[in-house]
Amino acid sequence: MKRQGCSFKLGCRGGKAVFITFEGIDGSGKTTQLKLLAAWLREQGCDPVTVREPGGTALGENIRSLLLSLQEGPTTATAELLLYAAARAELVSTVIRPALEAGRIVLADRFSDSTWAYQVCGRGLEPKWAKQVLAGAAPGLKPALTLLFDLEPAMALARSGRGDRLERESIDFFTRVREGYLTLAAKEAQRIRVIAVNNKDIRAVQTLIRREVADLLFD
Amino acid sequence: MKRQGCSFKLGCRGGKAVFITFEGIDGSGKTTQLKLLAAWLREQGCDPVTVREPGGTALGENIRSLLLSLQEGPTTATAELLLYAAARAELVSTVIRPALEAGRIVLADRFSDSTWAYQVCGRGLEPKWAKQVLAGAAPGLKPALTLLFDLEPAMALARSGRGDRLERESIDFFTRVREGYLTLAAKEAQRIRVIAVNNKDIRAVQTLIRREVADLLFD
Repeated sequence: MKRQGCSFKLGCRGGKAVFITFEGIDGSGKTTQLKLLAAWLREQGCDPVTVREPGGTALGENIRSLLLSLQEGPTTATAELLLYAAARAELVSTVIRPALEAGRIVLADRFSDSTWAYQVCGRGLEPKWAKQVLAGAAPGLKPALTLLFDLEPAMALARSGRGDRLERESIDFFTRVREGYLTLAAKEAQRIRVIAVNNKDIRAVQTLIRREVADLLFD
Repeated sequence: MKRQGCSFKLGCRGGKAVFITFEGIDGSGKTTQLKLLAAWLREQGCDPVTVREPGGTALGENIRSLLLSLQEGPTTATAELLLYAAARAELVSTVIRPALEAGRIVLADRFSDSTWAYQVCGRGLEPKWAKQVLAGAAPGLKPALTLLFDLEPAMALARSGRGDRLERESIDFFTRVREGYLTLAAKEAQRIRVIAVNNKDIRAVQTLIRREVADLLFD
């Protein structure tokens, strides 16, 4: 286990491999919060690996383009789920697992919970089949901590100005996705921490998540 | 059920939706045979839909490019299987099912048997998981007839001059794929007809498959 550069300031548990995922509907601010947390961890002497889903590999970034494309993207929820799962399988095997095996902290912008919330709860795919596919894409890998950024879909949509395929979905869709996330959080309260975003400013939310992560990482 | 243009010459069973798949290792000649069969069916007054896998849709052709790319393609067998399944889900839902529902004959250059032979038998993916994924990609859809073009891998490799990712695999790999196909054919002898290609010329093989297809389609 590597310990170098990770033993000063707040006292990062050097070399402890920890997998933390960031979840929430589009516009929830999770990407911004992940970047701020990564910067803060670096200040504490840690060296986190950050990944985004879908993406993070040559294959994954290509799949991301397909998924966000209006012309070239999937027209069926089944194909969509399989594409997310393919990007994840590649990312897990070539980036996440090697980083964890090297004792690094991995921060992921979306992971399996996204597929559950969006494709099963949002689009109505068969839960049993989706679970089987997801289990094979990242066998045995579960985050130690999942930060779920929660806010009203209408507010999230107003915050996110991008016009890609996902974000042009209806409020109804994002309401189902949000409910999917919250149901999951209620079932797995130990792993998933709900961060109520709403009208809080970026710094206030960052303070909340630093507290969660500090509990997990620091002595 | 549509019957127009499909009731003369050999007496094509007009409007009977029939799904026929072409399988075999790379270089087995299945693509050439499919084209010749489609032309012959048109001469008989039928109007077959031909598709290739992966491909046949905007998404599928993009996935095909990724799968055949040395730089951008999957590095893991799991991601590879999920990509094939995604392309198939899109093709089934947007092309194959609508064509069958319109009473058309569908000829497919590869289908689920390919994924089984290549990813499970060839690359050693877990059979139970692969079956679950495949079942969800094309729910309830099974070919009425599968033509399996069988020959020695060394001979197939010599016949196919292309240098893409799949065809640079080893003879050992194609031997496992071939055995996977033949085991499947033994289990499902009613559906899968093994066409021994070996040194036969194109016309001799075409005669064999026309006989199989005529038995299925014509009165």
